Amino acid sequence: MVSRQKLRLGIVGGGPGSFIGPVHLAAARLDGEFELVCGAFSRDAERSREAGRALGLSPERCYADYRDMLNRESGRSAEGLQCLVVATPNDTHFEISAAALRRGLHVMCDKPATRTLSEAQELAKIIAAERQVYALTYTYSGYPMVREAREVCASGQLGRIRRVQVEYLQGWLTRPIEKDGNKQAGWRTDPARAGSGCLGDIGVHAFHLLEFIAGHRVDRLRADLSTIVAGRAVDDDFAALLRLDNGAPGVIAASQIAAGEGNGLRIRVHGEQGSLDWSHAAADELTLRWLDRPTEILSSGVGGVGLSAASRAISRLPAAHPEGYIEAMANLYREFAAAVRGEPAAATLPTVADGVRGLQFIAAVERSARKSENWVPVAD
Amino acid sequence: MVSRQKLRLGIVGGGPGSFIGPVHLAAARLDGEFELVCGAFSRDAERSREAGRALGLSPERCYADYRDMLNRESGRSAEGLQCLVVATPNDTHFEISAAALRRGLHVMCDKPATRTLSEAQELAKIIAAERQVYALTYTYSGYPMVREAREVCASGQLGRIRRVQVEYLQGWLTRPIEKDGNKQAGWRTDPARAGSGCLGDIGVHAFHLLEFIAGHRVDRLRADLSTIVAGRAVDDDFAALLRLDNGAPGVIAASQIAAGEGNGLRIRVHGEQGSLDWSHAAADELTLRWLDRPTEILSSGVGGVGLSAASRAISRLPAAHPEGYIEAMANLYREFAAAVRGEPAAATLPTVADGVRGLQFIAAVERSARKSENWVPVAD
Amino acid sequence: MVSRQKLRLGIVGGGPGSFIGPVHLAAARLDGEFELVCGAFSRDAERSREAGRALGLSPERCYADYRDMLNRESGRSAEGLQCLVVATPNDTHFEISAAALRRGLHVMCDKPATRTLSEAQELAKIIAAERQVYALTYTYSGYPMVREAREVCASGQLGRIRRVQVEYLQGWLTRPIEKDGNKQAGWRTDPARAGSGCLGDIGVHAFHLLEFIAGHRVDRLRADLSTIVAGRAVDDDFAALLRLDNGAPGVIAASQIAAGEGNGLRIRVHGEQGSLDWSHAAADELTLRWLDRPTEILSSGVGGVGLSAASRAISRLPAAHPEGYIEAMANLYREFAAAVRGEPAAATLPTVADGVRGLQFIAAVERSARKSENWVPVAD
Amino acid sequence: MVSRQKLRLGIVGGGPGSFIGPVHLAAARLDGEFELVCGAFSRDAERSREAGRALGLSPERCYADYRDMLNRESGRSAEGLQCLVVATPNDTHFEISAAALRRGLHVMCDKPATRTLSEAQELAKIIAAERQVYALTYTYSGYPMVREAREVCASGQLGRIRRVQVEYLQGWLTRPIEKDGNKQAGWRTDPARAGSGCLGDIGVHAFHLLEFIAGHRVDRLRADLSTIVAGRAVDDDFAALLRLDNGAPGVIAASQIAAGEGNGLRIRVHGEQGSLDWSHAAADELTLRWLDRPTEILSSGVGGVGLSAASRAISRLPAAHPEGYIEAMANLYREFAAAVRGEPAAATLPTVADGVRGLQFIAAVERSARKSENWVPVAD
Repeated sequence: MVSRQKLRLGIVGGGPGSFIGPVHLAAARLDGEFELVCGAFSRDAERSREAGRALGLSPERCYADYRDMLNRESGRSAEGLQCLVVATPNDTHFEISAAALRRGLHVMCDKPATRTLSEAQELAKIIAAERQVYALTYTYSGYPMVREAREVCASGQLGRIRRVQVEYLQGWLTRPIEKDGNKQAGWRTDPARAGSGCLGDIGVHAFHLLEFIAGHRVDRLRADLSTIVAGRAVDDDFAALLRLDNGAPGVIAASQIAAGEGNGLRIRVHGEQGSLDWSHAAADELTLRWLDRPTEILSSGVGGVGLSAASRAISRLPAAHPEGYIEAMANLYREFAAAVRGEPAAATLPTVADGVRGLQFIAAVERSARKSENWVPVAD
Repeated sequence: MVSRQKLRLGIVGGGPGSFIGPVHLAAARLDGEFELVCGAFSRDAERSREAGRALGLSPERCYADYRDMLNRESGRSAEGLQCLVVATPNDTHFEISAAALRRGLHVMCDKPATRTLSEAQELAKIIAAERQVYALTYTYSGYPMVREAREVCASGQLGRIRRVQVEYLQGWLTRPIEKDGNKQAGWRTDPARAGSGCLGDIGVHAFHLLEFIAGHRVDRLRADLSTIVAGRAVDDDFAALLRLDNGAPGVIAASQIAAGEGNGLRIRVHGEQGSLDWSHAAADELTLRWLDRPTEILSSGVGGVGLSAASRAISRLPAAHPEGYIEAMANLYREFAAAVRGEPAAATLPTVADGVRGLQFIAAVERSARKSENWVPVAD
Repeated sequence: MVSRQKLRLGIVGGGPGSFIGPVHLAAARLDGEFELVCGAFSRDAERSREAGRALGLSPERCYADYRDMLNRESGRSAEGLQCLVVATPNDTHFEISAAALRRGLHVMCDKPATRTLSEAQELAKIIAAERQVYALTYTYSGYPMVREAREVCASGQLGRIRRVQVEYLQGWLTRPIEKDGNKQAGWRTDPARAGSGCLGDIGVHAFHLLEFIAGHRVDRLRADLSTIVAGRAVDDDFAALLRLDNGAPGVIAASQIAAGEGNGLRIRVHGEQGSLDWSHAAADELTLRWLDRPTEILSSGVGGVGLSAASRAISRLPAAHPEGYIEAMANLYREFAAAVRGEPAAATLPTVADGVRGLQFIAAVERSARKSENWVPVAD
Repeated sequence: MVSRQKLRLGIVGGGPGSFIGPVHLAAARLDGEFELVCGAFSRDAERSREAGRALGLSPERCYADYRDMLNRESGRSAEGLQCLVVATPNDTHFEISAAALRRGLHVMCDKPATRTLSEAQELAKIIAAERQVYALTYTYSGYPMVREAREVCASGQLGRIRRVQVEYLQGWLTRPIEKDGNKQAGWRTDPARAGSGCLGDIGVHAFHLLEFIAGHRVDRLRADLSTIVAGRAVDDDFAALLRLDNGAPGVIAASQIAAGEGNGLRIRVHGEQGSLDWSHAAADELTLRWLDRPTEILSSGVGGVGLSAASRAISRLPAAHPEGYIEAMANLYREFAAAVRGEPAAATLPTVADGVRGLQFIAAVERSARKSENWVPVAD
């Protein structure tokens, strides 16, 4: 028996001012499955080296161009790069992911998969041809109680699903901070880099969560899309009425100009026998409300009472010891590592199909909202 | 100085199995402003007398027919009926209210004002011609923290209103209990008696609350209306996208088949500087979330910290002594009593204009949903 | 069959600036069981008449002296006083209650029963001799979910009771407002009128709740009693360790200088199989936590799911329609009315025995705290 | 500029069935400051190797005896052990910590520092003589909002501290699971290994939190200590009345037989102007209640509104992205790493003085409870 080798990880993005890059790296570190070996942290060589040094990398493995990194690292054989984290603005997701996959690397990409639907579809073809693992950080799907919620729906306890309601409210773009040099706001409100605004940044999370938990696809929708902050080039608020593939109605809403809100993702699913309610603000809990018995609060944790194996298996701590956002993403990294090691891939790990689905959703919302069309299909 | 005389009150409805009738009477009693003197509790004479006896009425002032009551009571001059509570199914609201007003009585009617929009408009004409007071129990507008929320919007603290979100979720019609003899469900799911289903029963509450608090009118909407329970003759779930008269987007949703939910009315209003959040589940609190300072929780009560006169004035107890649904309705009865006594009418007391507005809302939703029309105006 | 006659009620106290007097009257009105016929609202005749007029009384039934009222009203036979509310400072509870009982009146007295233990014991003897109904407004015991909590303990669901924890935190006496003319604070911090401070004002509520819900007596305690605000003549903060009659340990704490707190009464009872948690801040709910199954939230209401008859019977509204403090006190008035009408007295209506118990508790705390004695018995 | 070298970490404990060992390792990994190089995971050589292999260690650096590890690793010079995690039962804390310190290693030890007060005092002398860093995982002090709470007290915003209330309720020892082979329960209920029960396991956390946040020392206490589960050899429930060094009263309680509770640590501090309330169940929030302004909810996060530098500095994510228990411990590891690297030690990092303090608390409680002494000093 040999000791467990860490998987060798590189990253594109995550330089100074990045939000999500460092979170990816922390998530990758948490369970000790990965070792960071190189990075293209910034297009500025000095900045990239500086970022790498702070992370313990030697200067020669810090790059200014991801293509350069892919070229040079592929020459290192045994100690070279195996897995690539893509934590850049949306417009580069496609080219970086495609290049990495073609080099034989496994890819963990931030959502959305790509900037456009056609890119996502193209990426799906590449992945089908190559044999590498590709996964997406729909991070909320890594929370134990989101997994539990999915199990509750799948188990049939709620009966037929009759209605769904999802919301995702943020307030950080209430003011036009993109004009004050805020780097995060800058690219996210630039249609050339982000594609869409609120829709692609957080709307896709809400949409993925809905289909992930309810176990039904959204069949069609009627949407409204607004740009509330004057002069902004992308949408910053949206809402849609929808119908699931079983005919059940639903509502989905997201906003980034909801002043005072933090990161308020919440989903409710109502069935014939009861309903579930999960909120990111109390991520360790799942509330089940029943027709014929008292409301129940499930609490996540190893050995937690009344939980399925699905959530217990990904908890690290006993109940009432909070696990957070990094742990949720780390759960996806753990599943990604298993897939890279050739273990059976978890059904819960978001794939390129989920990525395509997100872009289909964006396209459908835009079509319905911009043209005021009724009941636009979220085409498969 | 003479002692304060109680106002002489009668009621139509409120017999055995009634939900809202007894609540009206408790609300009317709470502040000692009214004295119940007669009632047409049931169309069955014996049942009406029985209901009246339990309330301390003598048999001769318990009637089987409200017309009979209006005739006989108007002969009693000094001790006769002054104010009439209409707590019957929707289809009789118009005729009873109209008859009472024409007899010179003041009317407190349960919502919706009438079964149809044309009835409501006709009623508005009658009221304009007579001099009596007419009010509607949009009960939620009687909660102190709903009044506070209205003040917060009116004061400009939130800045321009940018989005609104209202929901009202109940689960009591999850099963077809109207087929098992449930009296409340029976008439509420009968289109001939109720007009619409979920929409007219609770949707109008959500709609009234929105306009009452936000201080803006809903300009137009796109709606979806569902009948989820097979065989039911009315809608039992609805949702709509909307735009306010200032262009701000919003979402409104209501359901009576949301299994496990109780009486979950909630409103959020997001402005440029912050937002408010009120939920019936914590009716004594109002949450204010700000861009630039910590979230605040206001608690209702006499002498409550940080409150406007609007909510303090209608609280009966110090903060942290809960006041509930009956107290909220009693606040409307107190304002009704003041108006009847000739004191200046409170701007907060719902009038026939609010009644017409509710029916306009129902009509717009039905038009948009049934015909899948886009952006139907909520016509003034 | 004759119609139900209202019981004829009078009050001592409740004049201008009174907190609890108007609450008693609202509670008495709520269910229509009582009719206010007279009052000694203030020792100032003009003020008493003014208070009475506002309540619809004629001047001749408004008195400046309760003895005068008892004398004059006893001559009125059929329309005279039947039941007396005692809503005065503690030092007059004994003499007013005793005088009323000896006149053949039924008495509803605010807590504590008397100012001293010996008065309470004397009162118990008078009540044993007379046949009138005497009850105390330990108001919190009138909340439906407090009744439910009592049932949960009595039913044995929790197994043997192993620990209890009760707290009652208020902040309204954080500053020496008694020196600024606050009438409520004035008499409550005057040992001659109130007896004790925090202990007798809210400590006895916490103590009553503990024994009422847990179904066990406090056997002994070790207490600490503080006067935090300089110059105050009574205690304003207290805590005690205790042991129940079954040996289980517990903690009880109350404060009136807990700055920022409203009226935070909370009790937790832990048994072998699970525990209960009730908090006044969410009075309509009862949380049950179990060893082997998920946490449950019970919600009060007519027809509420998973509730015993004990709480359903005293709810006026369906679940999720909040009932508050006035309703809780009204539940005691309803039970008082039933007892006065000769119906079997509810086991839940607080009696003079509960009153004696409260004074025993005060005496034990004072003995333990002032003399630093260990384990002082709460003598029966 | 050279890249940042990871600190070389070893562990004693953390083998199969361990709870806290893996948490230490995850916390040490999270920020990339440490690299695990060796471990004495179990006294069984094969088990130790197995545990090490799963963590990526080669077999020769997995030991069955910590003394063997210290000997062998000290010969490795440049790649050898620098920092040792002590995650064993309490009775071995002293000897392992002392041996490591004398070898020149830095030590991060789980609480309590030692099994007995005299051991802790002895350890303090060793640390004073050596120059190594010694720290203790009073993990709760690593939560951002606990740091914020400490700042709120230190800043004087609350005014003089007037009362404190701390509780720590767990239910996992409700049944005698130590008799069913539960490893965690086994040593924790064995006085020879653990010293005390509930008191040393969680009571010291509550005590540390109190002094850490309030900024006052506990001067004296009166305690009650119970063994509720029959046949258990240590205490499993305790409570104490206390006085701070400024005379303010307080209550502290902890239990491990509070059936249904998870890990309910909560502290409230009441001052002259307001109060703070922190609960582990909502660890990302801090509630501030004020005399003269609305209640405020602070939310932790980088860039969080209304926060001091103290909490912002240790947050990794924007507000409303939950950070949990591992992150809290990782904050202590980050401060430990800084101290090891010779940077100025954070005042917030728990030291041996905190360790001594915890044992003084245990001794005082035991003396008061076992001998029923009054007001036992928590001797400095």
